[in-house]
Amino acid sequence: MKLLEDRIHKDGQVLGQDILKVDRFLTHQVDYQLMKEIGKRFAEVYANAGVTKVVTIEASGIAPALYAAESLNVPLIFAKKAKNVTMNDDLLVTEVYSFTKKLTSTVQISSKLLEAGEKVLIIDDFLANGQAALGLLDLMKQAKAEVVGLGIVIEKSFQDGRQKLLDEGMNLTSLARIEKFENGKVIFAPADDSAFDIN
Amino acid sequence: MKLLEDRIHKDGQVLGQDILKVDRFLTHQVDYQLMKEIGKRFAEVYANAGVTKVVTIEASGIAPALYAAESLNVPLIFAKKAKNVTMNDDLLVTEVYSFTKKLTSTVQISSKLLEAGEKVLIIDDFLANGQAALGLLDLMKQAKAEVVGLGIVIEKSFQDGRQKLLDEGMNLTSLARIEKFENGKVIFAPADDSAFDIN
Repeated sequence: MKLLEDRIHKDGQVLGQDILKVDRFLTHQVDYQLMKEIGKRFAEVYANAGVTKVVTIEASGIAPALYAAESLNVPLIFAKKAKNVTMNDDLLVTEVYSFTKKLTSTVQISSKLLEAGEKVLIIDDFLANGQAALGLLDLMKQAKAEVVGLGIVIEKSFQDGRQKLLDEGMNLTSLARIEKFENGKVIFAPADDSAFDIN
Repeated sequence: MKLLEDRIHKDGQVLGQDILKVDRFLTHQVDYQLMKEIGKRFAEVYANAGVTKVVTIEASGIAPALYAAESLNVPLIFAKKAKNVTMNDDLLVTEVYSFTKKLTSTVQISSKLLEAGEKVLIIDDFLANGQAALGLLDLMKQAKAEVVGLGIVIEKSFQDGRQKLLDEGMNLTSLARIEKFENGKVIFAPADDSAFDIN
């Protein structure tokens, strides 16, 4: 997605060997206009997939996932990272290790929110080692829901998450794919949605 | 906001003496249409306040705050609850105790995202004891930003958060105000935005 790549060039900050900081428009401050275009793009790609729910994980995935849900006219569910006293029903639970936060989180979804056979589009802000995405896939398997695709805002293609998800047979749509960092600049690989870009 | 009160009657679940579970449309599954109407309502109330940023706290505040930001055409910032390795700049930090999660979180905002004198509308999903809202007020004070108002989706008016915020001289706009729970049903007090309801 050219609009997103341009924004990463403009406002993204490369830290060390493998971290891209995008806290001016995605992970801390949120540019609703860009998120809306991102949500629309995911909806374009999965327009004919019969999506019944969009699923993401708190917190940075919520904004792009919400606009994807709006564009597809379905509800959004965000998986939760910590047990809350109001979550008293049957929970689907998995564990996710975050390399950026250096901790393992219990991630859960209330089982009553997903019926068997629902068609789910998973959205997340980053794909690196694939831990969060694989955790969400595990939750969807427990719910007997069908994952029609994974929409990723920014993929670090030099890490192994992409291959793990392709090995699971997943449809993967990464709107920006980072091949490498070179002298503090981002070098992109062709994005999965490039056919939808006008220019 | 009548639309919201009706939805709480329909899908809210009263647990024990003081917990309202709204995970079918706000805190876990998100109804984007309702969130959009809520965001628009906050924008109507603060249309002439010169808002430059909407600020919330992850994670359940993000959806209504994002639509408020869209309706006001300003960026959203969500305060973060845990230190992330990519947050390496000057941080504004405060502590917030959550009665529902029974833990104290460090809540922070990157200081570079707010300039002195910015006019901030704070949005949150729940107001009960006021801990999260007071934490955000503290962060805004550190940033030398002006808080033009607090928009709350659901207020538990039988707890003391409202009074604490009024004592701080805050403009408070709670779209649903719960006076009490009676036999498992929600009894509402008049909402702060009732003048904007058509019916």
